[in-house]
Amino acid sequence: MQEELIEKLIEQFRSLPGVGYKTAQRYAYSIIEGSKERAQVFSQAIVDAKAKIGFCEECGNFTDRKICPICERRDHKVICVVKEPRDIISMEKVKNYNGVYHVLFGTISPLNGRGPDDIKIRELLHRISKDGVQEVIMATNPDVEGDATAMYIAKILKPLGVKVTRLAQGVAMGSDLEYADEVTLARALEARREID
Amino acid sequence: MQEELIEKLIEQFRSLPGVGYKTAQRYAYSIIEGSKERAQVFSQAIVDAKAKIGFCEECGNFTDRKICPICERRDHKVICVVKEPRDIISMEKVKNYNGVYHVLFGTISPLNGRGPDDIKIRELLHRISKDGVQEVIMATNPDVEGDATAMYIAKILKPLGVKVTRLAQGVAMGSDLEYADEVTLARALEARREID
Repeated sequence: MQEELIEKLIEQFRSLPGVGYKTAQRYAYSIIEGSKERAQVFSQAIVDAKAKIGFCEECGNFTDRKICPICERRDHKVICVVKEPRDIISMEKVKNYNGVYHVLFGTISPLNGRGPDDIKIRELLHRISKDGVQEVIMATNPDVEGDATAMYIAKILKPLGVKVTRLAQGVAMGSDLEYADEVTLARALEARREID
Repeated sequence: MQEELIEKLIEQFRSLPGVGYKTAQRYAYSIIEGSKERAQVFSQAIVDAKAKIGFCEECGNFTDRKICPICERRDHKVICVVKEPRDIISMEKVKNYNGVYHVLFGTISPLNGRGPDDIKIRELLHRISKDGVQEVIMATNPDVEGDATAMYIAKILKPLGVKVTRLAQGVAMGSDLEYADEVTLARALEARREID
Protein backbone atom coordinates (compact mmCIF):
# COMPACT_ATOMS: atom_id res chain seq x y z
CA MET A 1 0.00 0.00 0.00
CA GLN A 2 2.97 2.30 -0.61
CA GLU A 3 1.82 5.41 -2.42
CA GLU A 4 2.79 5.59 -6.07
CA LEU A 5 4.40 9.04 -5.80
CA ILE A 6 6.62 7.85 -2.98
CA GLU A 7 7.62 4.83 -5.05
CA LYS A 8 8.49 7.13 -7.93
CA LEU A 9 10.71 9.24 -5.71
CA ILE A 10 12.35 6.15 -4.21
CA GLU A 11 13.04 4.89 -7.72
CA GLN A 12 14.82 8.15 -8.56
CA PHE A 13 17.01 8.00 -5.48
CA ARG A 14 17.83 4.39 -6.31
CA SER A 15 19.29 5.55 -9.60
CA LEU A 16 22.09 7.28 -7.68
CA PRO A 17 25.37 5.37 -7.44
CA GLY A 18 25.51 2.85 -4.60
CA VAL A 19 21.98 3.49 -3.33
CA GLY A 20 19.82 0.47 -2.49
CA TYR A 21 16.10 0.35 -1.80
CA LYS A 22 16.26 0.95 1.96
CA THR A 23 18.55 3.96 1.61
CA ALA A 24 16.44 5.40 -1.20
CA GLN A 25 13.39 4.98 1.01
CA ARG A 26 15.07 6.91 3.84
CA TYR A 27 15.98 9.72 1.43
CA ALA A 28 12.43 9.85 0.08
CA TYR A 29 10.91 10.04 3.56
CA SER A 30 13.30 12.82 4.47
CA ILE A 31 11.99 14.81 1.51
CA ILE A 32 8.35 14.14 2.38
CA GLU A 33 8.86 14.95 6.03
CA GLY A 34 10.87 18.09 5.21
CA SER A 35 9.52 21.51 4.27
CA LYS A 36 8.04 22.40 0.90
CA GLU A 37 10.75 25.03 0.43
CA ARG A 38 13.47 22.45 0.87
CA ALA A 39 11.87 20.17 -1.74
CA GLN A 40 11.69 23.08 -4.17
CA VAL A 41 15.27 24.17 -3.61
CA PHE A 42 16.45 20.57 -3.97
CA SER A 43 14.46 20.04 -7.13
CA GLN A 44 15.73 23.31 -8.61
CA ALA A 45 19.35 22.50 -7.78
CA ILE A 46 19.09 19.28 -9.81
CA VAL A 47 17.60 20.96 -12.85
CA ASP A 48 19.98 23.94 -12.66
CA ALA A 49 23.10 21.85 -12.32
CA LYS A 50 22.10 19.67 -15.24
CA ALA A 51 20.88 22.53 -17.43
CA LYS A 52 23.77 24.90 -16.90
CA ILE A 53 26.76 22.69 -16.26
CA GLY A 54 28.26 21.22 -19.39
CA PHE A 55 31.72 20.16 -20.52
CA CYS A 56 34.55 22.50 -21.50
CA GLU A 57 34.99 22.30 -25.28
CA GLU A 58 38.73 22.25 -24.84
CA CYS A 59 39.41 19.81 -22.01
CA GLY A 60 36.09 18.19 -21.02
CA ASN A 61 36.02 19.70 -17.51
CA PHE A 62 32.66 20.57 -15.92
CA THR A 63 31.86 24.21 -16.61
CA ASP A 64 29.00 26.61 -17.23
CA ARG A 65 30.94 28.36 -20.04
CA LYS A 66 32.30 27.27 -23.42
CA ILE A 67 35.89 27.13 -22.17
CA CYS A 68 36.58 26.41 -18.49
CA PRO A 69 38.60 28.81 -16.28
CA ILE A 70 41.49 26.35 -16.14
CA CYS A 71 41.90 26.26 -19.92
CA GLU A 72 41.56 30.02 -20.08
CA ARG A 73 44.27 30.89 -17.60
CA ARG A 74 46.82 28.12 -17.41
CA ASP A 75 49.92 26.77 -19.14
CA HIS A 76 48.94 24.72 -22.19
CA LYS A 77 52.39 23.17 -22.52
CA VAL A 78 51.56 20.55 -19.91
CA ILE A 79 48.41 18.41 -20.11
CA CYS A 80 47.27 16.16 -17.31
CA VAL A 81 45.10 13.36 -18.73
CA VAL A 82 42.29 12.02 -16.53
CA LYS A 83 39.46 9.55 -16.94
CA GLU A 84 36.54 11.67 -15.76
CA PRO A 85 35.73 15.35 -15.15
CA ARG A 86 35.47 14.71 -11.41
CA ASP A 87 39.13 13.66 -11.37
CA ILE A 88 40.09 17.24 -12.22
CA ILE A 89 38.62 18.39 -8.94
CA SER A 90 40.77 15.85 -7.10
CA MET A 91 43.90 16.90 -9.00
CA GLU A 92 43.20 20.57 -8.41
CA LYS A 93 43.74 20.03 -4.70
CA VAL A 94 47.43 19.88 -5.61
CA LYS A 95 47.91 23.61 -5.50
CA ASN A 96 51.15 23.86 -7.46
CA TYR A 97 50.02 22.25 -10.70
CA ASN A 98 49.78 24.98 -13.33
CA GLY A 99 49.06 22.97 -16.48
CA VAL A 100 45.76 22.11 -18.12
CA TYR A 101 43.72 18.89 -18.28
CA HIS A 102 42.27 16.48 -20.77
CA VAL A 103 39.33 14.27 -19.91
CA LEU A 104 39.23 10.93 -21.74
CA PHE A 105 35.66 10.14 -20.63
CA GLY A 106 36.58 6.54 -19.98
CA THR A 107 39.47 4.15 -20.26
CA ILE A 108 40.39 1.48 -22.76
CA SER A 109 38.68 -1.70 -21.60
CA PRO A 110 38.63 -4.61 -24.05
CA LEU A 111 36.56 -6.64 -21.59
CA ASN A 112 33.83 -4.02 -21.73
CA GLY A 113 34.21 -3.52 -25.46
CA ARG A 114 35.76 -0.05 -25.15
CA GLY A 115 38.64 0.56 -27.54
CA PRO A 116 40.83 3.64 -28.14
CA ASP A 117 38.21 5.16 -30.46
CA ASP A 118 35.60 5.14 -27.73
CA ILE A 119 37.46 7.61 -25.54
CA LYS A 120 38.82 11.08 -26.34
CA ILE A 121 42.29 10.13 -27.56
CA ARG A 122 41.93 11.72 -31.00
CA GLU A 123 41.01 15.01 -29.32
CA LEU A 124 44.12 14.72 -27.16
CA LEU A 125 46.34 14.24 -30.21
CA HIS A 126 44.74 17.28 -31.82
CA ARG A 127 45.45 19.45 -28.80
CA ILE A 128 49.04 18.21 -28.63
CA SER A 129 49.78 19.17 -32.23
CA LYS A 130 47.94 22.48 -31.90
CA ASP A 131 49.40 23.71 -28.61
CA GLY A 132 52.98 22.44 -28.86
CA VAL A 133 52.58 20.38 -25.72
CA GLN A 134 55.83 19.38 -24.01
CA GLU A 135 54.58 16.98 -21.38
CA VAL A 136 51.56 14.75 -20.98
CA ILE A 137 50.97 13.53 -17.43
CA MET A 138 48.88 10.35 -17.39
CA ALA A 139 46.65 10.58 -14.31
CA THR A 140 44.25 7.76 -15.10
CA ASN A 141 43.36 5.55 -12.14
CA PRO A 142 46.08 3.22 -10.83
CA ASP A 143 44.21 0.09 -11.88
CA VAL A 144 44.45 -2.31 -14.81
CA GLU A 145 42.39 -0.23 -17.22
CA GLY A 146 44.01 3.03 -16.16
CA ASP A 147 47.47 1.56 -16.61
CA ALA A 148 46.63 0.05 -19.99
CA THR A 149 45.23 3.34 -21.20
CA ALA A 150 48.34 5.21 -20.02
CA MET A 151 50.59 2.71 -21.81
CA TYR A 152 48.59 2.94 -25.00
CA ILE A 153 48.70 6.74 -25.09
CA ALA A 154 52.42 6.78 -24.21
CA LYS A 155 53.11 4.47 -27.13
CA ILE A 156 51.33 6.81 -29.54
CA LEU A 157 52.92 9.99 -28.19
CA LYS A 158 56.53 8.84 -27.95
CA PRO A 159 57.20 9.05 -31.71
CA LEU A 160 55.86 12.63 -31.65
CA GLY A 161 58.63 13.64 -29.25
CA VAL A 162 56.25 14.37 -26.40
CA LYS A 163 57.38 13.47 -22.91
CA VAL A 164 54.79 11.21 -21.31
CA THR A 165 54.81 10.74 -17.55
CA ARG A 166 52.64 8.75 -15.20
CA LEU A 167 51.54 9.63 -11.68
CA ALA A 168 53.86 7.74 -9.35
CA GLN A 169 52.27 4.70 -7.78
CA GLY A 170 52.06 6.49 -4.48
CA VAL A 171 48.36 6.10 -4.93
CA ALA A 172 47.41 2.63 -3.75
CA MET A 173 46.75 -0.02 -6.41
CA GLY A 174 43.07 -0.74 -6.94
CA SER A 175 41.93 2.49 -5.32
CA ASP A 176 39.95 5.23 -6.99
CA LEU A 177 41.50 8.62 -7.77
CA GLU A 178 38.36 10.36 -6.67
CA TYR A 179 38.97 9.32 -3.07
CA ALA A 180 42.70 9.98 -2.84
CA ASP A 181 43.80 12.58 -0.27
CA GLU A 182 45.80 15.66 -1.27
CA VAL A 183 49.09 14.52 0.23
CA THR A 184 49.03 11.23 -1.64
CA LEU A 185 48.14 13.04 -4.83
CA ALA A 186 50.82 15.69 -4.32
CA ARG A 187 53.50 13.05 -3.77
CA ALA A 188 52.35 11.04 -6.72
CA LEU A 189 52.52 14.12 -8.91
CA GLU A 190 55.97 15.06 -7.64
CA ALA A 191 57.41 11.57 -8.22
CA ARG A 192 55.85 11.09 -11.66
CA ARG A 193 58.03 9.01 -13.97
CA GLU A 194 58.45 8.86 -17.71
CA ILE A 195 56.84 5.89 -19.41
CA ASP A 196 59.42 4.06 -21.53
CA MET B 1 37.62 25.70 -9.16
CA GLN B 2 34.48 23.72 -8.34
CA GLU B 3 31.52 25.29 -10.09
CA GLU B 4 29.02 27.03 -7.81
CA LEU B 5 26.02 25.16 -9.22
CA ILE B 6 27.67 21.83 -8.47
CA GLU B 7 28.35 22.99 -4.92
CA LYS B 8 24.70 23.94 -4.54
CA LEU B 9 23.60 20.50 -5.68
CA ILE B 10 26.11 18.79 -3.40
CA GLU B 11 24.77 20.83 -0.50
CA GLN B 12 21.25 19.56 -1.22
CA PHE B 13 22.33 15.95 -1.32
CA ARG B 14 24.20 16.48 1.93
CA SER B 15 20.91 17.40 3.59
CA LEU B 16 19.73 13.80 3.16
CA PRO B 17 20.07 11.53 6.21
CA GLY B 18 23.52 9.96 6.59
CA VAL B 19 25.05 11.59 3.52
CA GLY B 20 28.54 13.11 3.86
CA TYR B 21 30.38 15.38 1.45
CA LYS B 22 32.03 12.67 -0.66
CA THR B 23 28.80 10.75 -1.12
CA ALA B 24 26.88 13.93 -1.96
CA GLN B 25 29.57 14.75 -4.52
CA ARG B 26 29.17 11.34 -6.17
CA TYR B 27 25.41 11.81 -6.33
CA ALA B 28 25.81 15.29 -7.83
CA TYR B 29 28.22 14.06 -10.51
CA SER B 30 25.85 11.25 -11.39
CA ILE B 31 23.17 13.87 -12.04
CA ILE B 32 25.47 16.05 -14.13
CA GLU B 33 26.77 13.12 -16.10
CA GLY B 34 23.29 11.70 -16.61
CA SER B 35 20.73 12.77 -19.21
CA LYS B 36 18.72 15.96 -19.06
CA GLU B 37 15.52 13.86 -19.01
CA ARG B 38 16.69 12.00 -15.94
CA ALA B 39 17.43 15.27 -14.12
CA GLN B 40 13.98 16.56 -14.98
CA VAL B 41 12.21 13.38 -13.90
CA PHE B 42 14.20 13.33 -10.65
CA SER B 43 13.49 16.98 -9.96
CA GLN B 44 9.79 16.51 -10.68
CA ALA B 45 9.56 13.43 -8.46
CA ILE B 46 10.83 15.47 -5.50
CA VAL B 47 8.39 18.31 -6.01
CA ASP B 48 5.46 15.97 -6.71
CA ALA B 49 6.06 13.77 -3.71
CA LYS B 50 6.32 16.77 -1.42
CA ALA B 51 3.39 18.64 -2.96
CA LYS B 52 0.95 15.75 -3.18
CA ILE B 53 1.88 13.42 -0.35
CA GLY B 54 0.50 14.44 2.99
CA PHE B 55 -0.71 12.62 6.08
CA CYS B 56 -3.96 10.67 6.36
CA GLU B 57 -6.36 12.71 8.50
CA GLU B 58 -7.43 9.55 10.27
CA CYS B 59 -4.23 7.65 11.04
CA GLY B 60 -1.27 9.83 10.00
CA ASN B 61 -0.06 7.48 7.23
CA PHE B 62 1.51 8.97 4.10
CA THR B 63 -1.16 9.46 1.45
CA ASP B 64 -2.15 11.66 -1.47
CA ARG B 65 -5.80 11.65 -0.37
CA LYS B 66 -7.65 12.87 2.71
CA ILE B 67 -8.05 9.34 4.08
CA CYS B 68 -5.53 6.63 3.20
CA PRO B 69 -6.51 3.33 1.52
CA ILE B 70 -5.81 1.39 4.71
CA CYS B 71 -8.26 3.46 6.75
CA GLU B 72 -10.81 3.23 3.97
CA ARG B 73 -10.86 -0.53 3.61
CA ARG B 74 -9.79 -2.19 6.81
CA ASP B 75 -11.10 -3.27 10.19
CA HIS B 76 -11.25 -0.29 12.57
CA LYS B 77 -11.69 -2.51 15.63
CA VAL B 78 -7.94 -3.11 15.85
CA ILE B 79 -5.42 -0.27 15.85
CA CYS B 80 -1.68 -0.79 15.56
CA VAL B 81 0.16 2.20 17.09
CA VAL B 82 3.50 3.19 15.54
CA LYS B 83 5.98 6.01 16.00
CA GLU B 84 6.36 7.20 12.40
CA PRO B 85 4.52 6.87 9.09
CA ARG B 86 7.39 4.80 7.65
CA ASP B 87 6.78 2.15 10.32
CA ILE B 88 3.45 1.39 8.66
CA ILE B 89 5.28 0.25 5.56
CA SER B 90 7.37 -2.15 7.66
CA MET B 91 4.31 -3.53 9.42
CA GLU B 92 2.43 -3.93 6.14
CA LYS B 93 4.93 -6.60 5.11
CA VAL B 94 3.05 -8.81 7.56
CA LYS B 95 0.40 -9.80 5.07
CA ASN B 96 -2.28 -11.08 7.45
CA TYR B 97 -2.78 -7.94 9.54
CA ASN B 98 -6.18 -6.52 8.69
CA GLY B 99 -6.51 -3.71 11.22
CA VAL B 100 -5.72 -0.01 10.87
CA TYR B 101 -2.85 2.14 12.19
CA HIS B 102 -2.23 5.19 14.31
CA VAL B 103 0.92 7.25 13.95
CA LEU B 104 2.09 8.99 17.12
CA PHE B 105 4.65 11.17 15.31
CA GLY B 106 7.18 10.62 18.06
CA THR B 107 7.55 8.96 21.44
CA ILE B 108 7.44 10.25 24.98
CA SER B 109 10.97 11.34 25.84
CA PRO B 110 11.41 13.40 29.01
CA LEU B 111 15.13 13.75 28.27
CA ASN B 112 14.28 15.52 25.02
CA GLY B 113 11.45 17.47 26.58
CA ARG B 114 8.69 15.53 24.75
CA GLY B 115 5.69 14.73 26.91
CA PRO B 116 2.39 12.94 26.15
CA ASP B 117 0.87 16.15 24.76
CA ASP B 118 3.59 16.46 22.13
CA ILE B 119 2.59 13.27 20.33
CA LYS B 120 -0.78 12.18 18.93
CA ILE B 121 -2.19 10.42 22.00
CA ARG B 122 -5.30 12.60 22.25
CA GLU B 123 -6.14 11.73 18.65
CA LEU B 124 -5.75 8.03 19.48
CA LEU B 125 -8.18 8.34 22.40
CA HIS B 126 -10.65 10.10 20.17
CA ARG B 127 -10.49 7.30 17.58
CA ILE B 128 -10.90 4.65 20.27
CA SER B 129 -14.08 6.20 21.65
CA LYS B 130 -15.45 6.88 18.16
CA ASP B 131 -14.77 3.52 16.52
CA GLY B 132 -15.39 1.13 19.41
CA VAL B 133 -11.87 -0.22 19.22
CA GLN B 134 -11.31 -3.63 20.84
CA GLU B 135 -7.54 -3.98 20.69
CA VAL B 136 -4.63 -1.58 20.51
CA ILE B 137 -1.34 -3.14 19.45
CA MET B 138 1.63 -1.06 20.62
CA ALA B 139 4.26 -1.33 17.87
CA THR B 140 6.57 1.46 19.01
CA ASN B 141 10.27 0.60 18.81
CA PRO B 142 11.65 -1.88 21.36
CA ASP B 143 13.82 0.76 23.07
CA VAL B 144 13.51 2.82 26.25
CA GLU B 145 11.34 5.53 24.73
CA GLY B 146 9.19 3.10 22.75
CA ASP B 147 8.62 0.98 25.87
CA ALA B 148 7.81 3.99 28.04
CA THR B 149 5.33 5.27 25.47
CA ALA B 150 3.66 1.85 25.23
CA MET B 151 3.40 1.65 29.02
CA TYR B 152 1.92 5.13 29.29
CA ILE B 153 -0.73 4.49 26.64
CA ALA B 154 -1.58 1.08 28.13
CA LYS B 155 -2.14 2.73 31.51
CA ILE B 156 -4.58 5.22 30.02
CA LEU B 157 -6.47 2.67 27.94
CA LYS B 158 -6.86 -0.11 30.53
CA PRO B 159 -9.63 1.71 32.48
CA LEU B 160 -11.55 2.15 29.21
CA GLY B 161 -11.77 -1.63 28.82
CA VAL B 162 -9.57 -1.71 25.72
CA LYS B 163 -7.18 -4.63 25.33
CA VAL B 164 -3.65 -3.28 24.88
CA THR B 165 -0.95 -5.60 23.53
CA ARG B 166 2.71 -5.09 22.71
CA LEU B 167 4.75 -6.66 19.88
CA ALA B 168 6.60 -9.64 21.35
CA GLN B 169 10.23 -8.94 22.12
CA GLY B 170 12.87 -11.60 21.76
CA VAL B 171 15.70 -12.75 19.55
CA ALA B 172 15.14 -11.82 15.91
CA MET B 173 14.56 -14.56 13.35
CA GLY B 174 17.77 -15.39 11.51
CA SER B 175 19.93 -13.54 14.02
CA ASP B 176 22.84 -15.07 15.91
CA LEU B 177 22.50 -15.66 19.65
CA GLU B 178 26.19 -14.86 20.05
CA TYR B 179 25.56 -11.26 19.03
CA ALA B 180 22.29 -10.69 20.88
CA ASP B 181 22.54 -8.12 23.67
CA GLU B 182 21.72 -8.99 27.30
CA VAL B 183 18.47 -7.04 27.42
CA THR B 184 17.13 -8.83 24.35
CA LEU B 185 18.17 -12.21 25.73
CA ALA B 186 16.67 -11.44 29.14
CA ARG B 187 13.34 -10.53 27.55
CA ALA B 188 13.40 -13.57 25.28
CA LEU B 189 14.05 -15.80 28.29
CA GLU B 190 11.34 -14.16 30.33
CA ALA B 191 8.78 -14.53 27.54
CA ARG B 192 9.79 -18.14 26.72
CA ARG B 193 7.02 -20.42 25.58
CA GLU B 194 6.47 -24.14 25.90
CA ILE B 195 7.15 -26.16 22.78
CA ASP B 196 4.28 -28.50 22.04
